[in-house]
Amino acid sequence: MKPTVTLEYCPKCGWLMRSAWMAQELLTTFTDDVHGVLLHPSEFSGRFSVSVDGVKIFDRKEAGRFPDIKELKQLIRDIVNPEKSLGHSEKK
Amino acid sequence: MKPTVTLEYCPKCGWLMRSAWMAQELLTTFTDDVHGVLLHPSEFSGRFSVSVDGVKIFDRKEAGRFPDIKELKQLIRDIVNPEKSLGHSEKK
Repeated sequence: MKPTVTLEYCPKCGWLMRSAWMAQELLTTFTDDVHGVLLHPSEFSGRFSVSVDGVKIFDRKEAGRFPDIKELKQLIRDIVNPEKSLGHSEKK
Repeated sequence: MKPTVTLEYCPKCGWLMRSAWMAQELLTTFTDDVHGVLLHPSEFSGRFSVSVDGVKIFDRKEAGRFPDIKELKQLIRDIVNPEKSLGHSEKK
């Protein structure tokens, strides 16, 4: 089974839209590398975290910010397909 | 554990966007009723199906069409929270 990416978001904070956007970014980039992306409304206020197969790779409260989409793709790429190039977004 | 809704879509058919839209509709309506919505790129051409906890409730090939969003919400409501009113969308 390919990895599943979970985006846990605080619905009361209004973070569904950005989470759905991130899901579409990840599914466009990692179509063949992941089983899917799960959008999971959190029961915890202010929660925004990203996990791959249950292992947390980003937490908004720990980081003090939301992830940049490029950073998020790099974190996920390193787990689901380390050889994959993310193209011009990785060039300086 | 609350139910998980899976949207399996054919990425080569360009159905990510409509699937992501449906996911947002379902998460807006069923925020407290579901664990989440999984967007799952299919390995099968032309596949668009909806499952709740692994039980298929809609299949594009069987139906010969995509589901209407109102119809999809009714099918899911009947499983995840049968008492829930879907509001004015159910009035004639």
